[in-house]
Amino acid sequence: LLVGSYEGRLATGCPQVQLGFRHESRDKRFTIYVIQLSNCSAPCLQADQKLYVRVAVLPCVEATRCLFRTRRFPPQDAVQLDEVFGTQISRDALRQKTLRVDVCHTSSSGHEECLTGAQISLADIGCSEERRTSWYNLLSHAYMPDIGNKRTDRR
Amino acid sequence: LLVGSYEGRLATGCPQVQLGFRHESRDKRFTIYVIQLSNCSAPCLQADQKLYVRVAVLPCVEATRCLFRTRRFPPQDAVQLDEVFGTQISRDALRQKTLRVDVCHTSSSGHEECLTGAQISLADIGCSEERRTSWYNLLSHAYMPDIGNKRTDRR
Repeated sequence: LLVGSYEGRLATGCPQVQLGFRHESRDKRFTIYVIQLSNCSAPCLQADQKLYVRVAVLPCVEATRCLFRTRRFPPQDAVQLDEVFGTQISRDALRQKTLRVDVCHTSSSGHEECLTGAQISLADIGCSEERRTSWYNLLSHAYMPDIGNKRTDRR
Repeated sequence: LLVGSYEGRLATGCPQVQLGFRHESRDKRFTIYVIQLSNCSAPCLQADQKLYVRVAVLPCVEATRCLFRTRRFPPQDAVQLDEVFGTQISRDALRQKTLRVDVCHTSSSGHEECLTGAQISLADIGCSEERRTSWYNLLSHAYMPDIGNKRTDRR
């Protein structure tokens, strides 16, 4: 396995997203780079359905923007996105945030439906003045009910 | 803010879990350390309800164990757990896994109900022979439906 190489990543078969983060403390600017996806062929989709990446900086309580969506793209193994999103947030506030990054599509009934995603704690990661990039495994949302994370009874 | 200090972490107000990971390549042993929680007072719970931490190594497809639960504890700001779980997995397989760590309780109707959680890609993190520990922000499950991650229509 060629670790870190593109071929190595494709060989793993695991859907992944490459993200970059940067926080400029002087002007309190947090920048998220959605660079590329690998192994996101999504065989469950119809041929004409397109995917997009949704990025949310959570909890979203301030008046600043916290929800972003990339352009749409057809399901395929390797997708180069190179999209950049930014929001105004202090370093201390950023440390308490969690990033949800989900690969979604619009269902035939018009609802946003997410297939797979990553969740990234910004406790440590969001504090670099220079851009840092990493690959993150995406976990299928289909696994979530199996481990019982939905609230099955509501009071 | 005293970054990294216990007082600093409590001051942030954000629920966090401290985890440790270690992978021994010789005997293909992956060890997860659930060390402690901070700011997990869970005011939505009744006084007699107890919490526990559920750890899942996903996707869970092999015959090896992938789901673990800690002992139960009363809701409080700081909880020292120091529990250790292990599973047999190769380094290459581990790189494709994602860890879900959720703080759960058993509802009055007997269902497992999770309040908050972290999701950690093991693409890079799970590959150290020595134990590495980090703090992770926990994201309330209440935020998940707001960003639409549930499959609202089923085909």
